[in-house]
Amino acid sequence: MTKTVGYIGLGLMGASMARNLLKAGYPLVVHNRSREIVRQLVSEGAQEAFSPKEVASRVDVVFTNLPDSPDVEQVVLGPNGIIEGAHQGLIWVDNSTIKPEISRYIASELGKAGVRSLDAPVSGGDIGARAGTLTIMVGGPEDAFEEVMPLLQAMGKTITHIGESGAGQVAKACNQIMVAAQMVAMGELLVLAAKTGVDPQKVINAIKGGAAQCWTLDNKPQRIFRGDRSPGFKAYMQRKDLGIVMDTARVYGVSLPLTAVTTQLFEAMLQNGMHDLDNSAVLGILELLNGTHIGP
Amino acid sequence: MTKTVGYIGLGLMGASMARNLLKAGYPLVVHNRSREIVRQLVSEGAQEAFSPKEVASRVDVVFTNLPDSPDVEQVVLGPNGIIEGAHQGLIWVDNSTIKPEISRYIASELGKAGVRSLDAPVSGGDIGARAGTLTIMVGGPEDAFEEVMPLLQAMGKTITHIGESGAGQVAKACNQIMVAAQMVAMGELLVLAAKTGVDPQKVINAIKGGAAQCWTLDNKPQRIFRGDRSPGFKAYMQRKDLGIVMDTARVYGVSLPLTAVTTQLFEAMLQNGMHDLDNSAVLGILELLNGTHIGP
Repeated sequence: MTKTVGYIGLGLMGASMARNLLKAGYPLVVHNRSREIVRQLVSEGAQEAFSPKEVASRVDVVFTNLPDSPDVEQVVLGPNGIIEGAHQGLIWVDNSTIKPEISRYIASELGKAGVRSLDAPVSGGDIGARAGTLTIMVGGPEDAFEEVMPLLQAMGKTITHIGESGAGQVAKACNQIMVAAQMVAMGELLVLAAKTGVDPQKVINAIKGGAAQCWTLDNKPQRIFRGDRSPGFKAYMQRKDLGIVMDTARVYGVSLPLTAVTTQLFEAMLQNGMHDLDNSAVLGILELLNGTHIGP
Repeated sequence: MTKTVGYIGLGLMGASMARNLLKAGYPLVVHNRSREIVRQLVSEGAQEAFSPKEVASRVDVVFTNLPDSPDVEQVVLGPNGIIEGAHQGLIWVDNSTIKPEISRYIASELGKAGVRSLDAPVSGGDIGARAGTLTIMVGGPEDAFEEVMPLLQAMGKTITHIGESGAGQVAKACNQIMVAAQMVAMGELLVLAAKTGVDPQKVINAIKGGAAQCWTLDNKPQRIFRGDRSPGFKAYMQRKDLGIVMDTARVYGVSLPLTAVTTQLFEAMLQNGMHDLDNSAVLGILELLNGTHIGP
């Protein structure tokens, strides 16, 4: 029997992911604080609900995709939250990137109401969300994972069950360690080239095919060279995710000297009005430190 | 007319690169402090010379491939050095990774003797050297670059003229900023996964295809998971190259906060007897910091 699906949190990512569920033929109930995108999805065939509680009560699987840990806690455990619409068999899938220990806590509270929970943060940006090619990292009970697999396949390409509750969030944190390192390293090497009087574009072309090859060098330099620092993935979200990494490191007692530095450089973006720029625009902080500028 | 070529410095990289020149049909004169590899190459068709001066006097193009800046300075400008065998038309090509300002200084000294110089450091490791698929980053006069291009094509695949003398060394320094960042970020994310009780192998499989994708995640984790930390690219050479980056940053006045940290972590490898391990084994320092171990 086709599952009825709910989606709460229709931001840039969530709206595209909900739309892909709709396209795959699932009856879809949606809810969002801002109503404009709800009206849009209703015009495409979704049904509207007026609270997380109502969504949960009407569906077999309820997704959330929200900015940060407190938002998820509020929508699931708060007044008129998912927990108030809990029923036997309900599965909650959280596509938000939040703290692993908050994921585990919410899952355990929902468990008392008979709800199985999966943390399922994604990577791949708005492009991957639209194209249905996201990387999805999942933590939680294996039976629930298998049950929602067809739904995840409507939204992503590489879908991995990592381990128990919270393990998906840990994998996402690990992902962000590498992404942030690549972004900052690209910024530093561009500034080094420029300050020594060497053409940064020629440097990128020379090194991007060798041992320095990475997603960041493949995708970001051409945008920087034409002066485009628009997102993509916003700096304040990168900062928020690195906050999760460092908070998790504190909770579990982990020393991460490199990520401590990358976190501080993204923090410096917030302190310099660069919240809404692309995460690759951390270059701007290295330019500030060095009194130089890359691109037009 | 086929050029006669000299190669000085037949280490792991140099020997393979010299061999590829020989295979491409160039008359080759070789010199090396340790004689074993010289005898080997002579048995394959090379001729032996007994000083850098002698090599230079007998060839049209002389290559060097030496560990560090003082070695190159000694072999080129020291007693019985290349400069003493200088003659009209001679081109010196340095495949060593050394400080850009030393490259420029030596090139300028050789220029007084009528020799044109190219700095042409490489990336791609012993595997790329054997296969002739190296990335070669070249600085120096364009006419000399074009003249030696067929020789470089016998040794590498991606060959880029970056700019004036020293620009090849700057590109290599930029390359090492990114390589070091990837190595350390991989170490940090493996340790974070392990300490939170999540399977590091599952994390790598989940994230390596997304925005975290890089040469390091493609090539290194499987070796670490089977307990293989042998080089590859030795930690003390990575440390030496990062020393060049930070020294260049000091000379030109560049602030590189991330690379300052990666440099210190590779320095910690030397302080813990890890000189001869692979650069990916910087993981070992993060294990030390965190009292944990990844792999068998």
